[in-house]
Amino acid sequence: MRFSLFVHMERVSDQQTQKQLYDEMIELCQIADRGGMHAIWTGEHHAMNFTIAPNPFLNIADLANKTKHVRLGTGTVVAPFWHPIKLAGEAAMTDIISNGRLDIGIARGAYSFEYERMVPGMDAWSAGQRLREMIPAIKNLWKGDYEHNGEFWQFPKTTSAPQPLQQPNPPIWVAARDPNSHEFAVQNGCNVQVTPLHLGDEEVEKLMGHFNSACEKFQDIERPEIMLLRHTYVADSEEDAQVAANEMNVFYNYFGAWFKNEREINQGLIAPLSDEEIAAHPFYTPEAMRKNNVIGQAQEVIDRLKAYEAMGYDEYSFWIDTGMSFERKKASLERMINEVMPAFSESKVDRRHATISAVY
Amino acid sequence: MRFSLFVHMERVSDQQTQKQLYDEMIELCQIADRGGMHAIWTGEHHAMNFTIAPNPFLNIADLANKTKHVRLGTGTVVAPFWHPIKLAGEAAMTDIISNGRLDIGIARGAYSFEYERMVPGMDAWSAGQRLREMIPAIKNLWKGDYEHNGEFWQFPKTTSAPQPLQQPNPPIWVAARDPNSHEFAVQNGCNVQVTPLHLGDEEVEKLMGHFNSACEKFQDIERPEIMLLRHTYVADSEEDAQVAANEMNVFYNYFGAWFKNEREINQGLIAPLSDEEIAAHPFYTPEAMRKNNVIGQAQEVIDRLKAYEAMGYDEYSFWIDTGMSFERKKASLERMINEVMPAFSESKVDRRHATISAVY
Repeated sequence: MRFSLFVHMERVSDQQTQKQLYDEMIELCQIADRGGMHAIWTGEHHAMNFTIAPNPFLNIADLANKTKHVRLGTGTVVAPFWHPIKLAGEAAMTDIISNGRLDIGIARGAYSFEYERMVPGMDAWSAGQRLREMIPAIKNLWKGDYEHNGEFWQFPKTTSAPQPLQQPNPPIWVAARDPNSHEFAVQNGCNVQVTPLHLGDEEVEKLMGHFNSACEKFQDIERPEIMLLRHTYVADSEEDAQVAANEMNVFYNYFGAWFKNEREINQGLIAPLSDEEIAAHPFYTPEAMRKNNVIGQAQEVIDRLKAYEAMGYDEYSFWIDTGMSFERKKASLERMINEVMPAFSESKVDRRHATISAVY
Repeated sequence: MRFSLFVHMERVSDQQTQKQLYDEMIELCQIADRGGMHAIWTGEHHAMNFTIAPNPFLNIADLANKTKHVRLGTGTVVAPFWHPIKLAGEAAMTDIISNGRLDIGIARGAYSFEYERMVPGMDAWSAGQRLREMIPAIKNLWKGDYEHNGEFWQFPKTTSAPQPLQQPNPPIWVAARDPNSHEFAVQNGCNVQVTPLHLGDEEVEKLMGHFNSACEKFQDIERPEIMLLRHTYVADSEEDAQVAANEMNVFYNYFGAWFKNEREINQGLIAPLSDEEIAAHPFYTPEAMRKNNVIGQAQEVIDRLKAYEAMGYDEYSFWIDTGMSFERKKASLERMINEVMPAFSESKVDRRHATISAVY
């Protein structure tokens, strides 16, 4: 099982400048690159300081210059916020800029906060339908001379300009949760990205179950890959792990507030949650975080990840967005690279660099 | 008067690979950067191998790493193909990535080929109205907590994420032709970009006239800057200049064919024009090209540009997209830097490098 970093600019206070947050994100990416991680994933969100990511292709174009080895993936672009011709063109241009290092993760999106701004009146079902119309459309645009008469987009015979370096196209990954999404992905020759969010490993097994069933259903199609995305913290002690569990609990409370889309938001920052509000959450608790997310000292993390590898996950993505300080994120990522990943070196891990400190 | 480069990937035959065209574009940009040009401008076009540019912010993010001094401008983004929240966010992210080197050129677009694909049913007038709705919207999104109820876009209270490094925003340039566009630009605190295309210098004077009238009308607003964009070739002989005039004549015939949007297009390439068709064009001729565009040996070019400087143009942009070979473009650009720009060094030209060959 190989490893990747899932990372964004996160602004939780107006005391943080956006330039500083961007430089910190780049540094984490360079640590992942030097540390032999397989890929870096960064996604798309709009008008939310919680996750600052207007267009992942921009960051990938920058990272293509600032990293050397890692694959560079969108985790994910949000199909309803794109026109197929723009998405096909930008993905192809980014593939050229990154010299063929692009992977394309695509999803239907999640936040009503974003839906009501970007595509007023669209609901989650319709967002999913746009995702299903989008993937065949961009594949055909890269093939060229493609006319499209869909529910959401219509255009005469068109060829993407440019066309991607990776032919016929960069690997496409669909973010899937329900069985239908898994089936759609497999049927369309796409890999799958899953996340249990704050839930336990029974959810991780269930997601793998959906994937296996979909592969079973389409046996004529080569089995695609599946990536597991999980909030992760490699601690230097149990106390450190408890601190991380608390931090993740706060993070998830803010995630929940953004998701409910009822709270006042000023200058892109959501009104702060009180300790009382956080303590009163019905199912987000530090204990659940500590138990469900991958938090712990190296051996505990290794054991958790070995279980995922045994389930058949091809890639484990280290979700580092937790509202923590840059220093804590960096220390945890370095322990992941130095203390956890070596335990998987005999597997498909790309171990170009033994330990990151010995490297340039 | 300062100088900039206006440049895109141009694919005129399927023998050219897109990666090679991209690398050549980057090399021209690095020559401009080392040669002391003020800026590089690159625009937005879709599904046209004639001009391959799905999103100029991507190329600017790459160029921010591959150049050192030049300003990096969108020449231009096309307002109708964007959502204000996406444009504000991507411009701000690109400003952060480029460390505050971004200029934003914006226009309503031109080709019906693109309109009918990206915004079916939209005409040029409506495209212009979207431009006028877009500019105030992105300015307010950068200020933050902005609700928008326009004709084309509606969204609740929103703040751009991220916000730009250059405060309150990077310089905005509006591509203007008719007096109203000049007035709109000046009134909205924007600079102006103009091009006479293939017409003579009487058009260049007329465009400056519109600009001056607009500045006259809004005297309470500080006079913005105006940039002149012209196809340019600095020749090493008159024979060489004639060759360039022929090449530009072919280029404009293809520009006309794309603009009329009647000709068969396969794999993004328009059906080749015969010599007879080119010779029969009612107003594109090699003679007109030689006379109107800025083509000639160094002294002739200097004289043309001195006239523009005298008219009050702040910046002259060297439009290098002409269908010529990379080698001829490169040679012409180097002569511009070595033989023409020094004649303007006492003016506001940024002469960090005496001659490009002596540089890194």
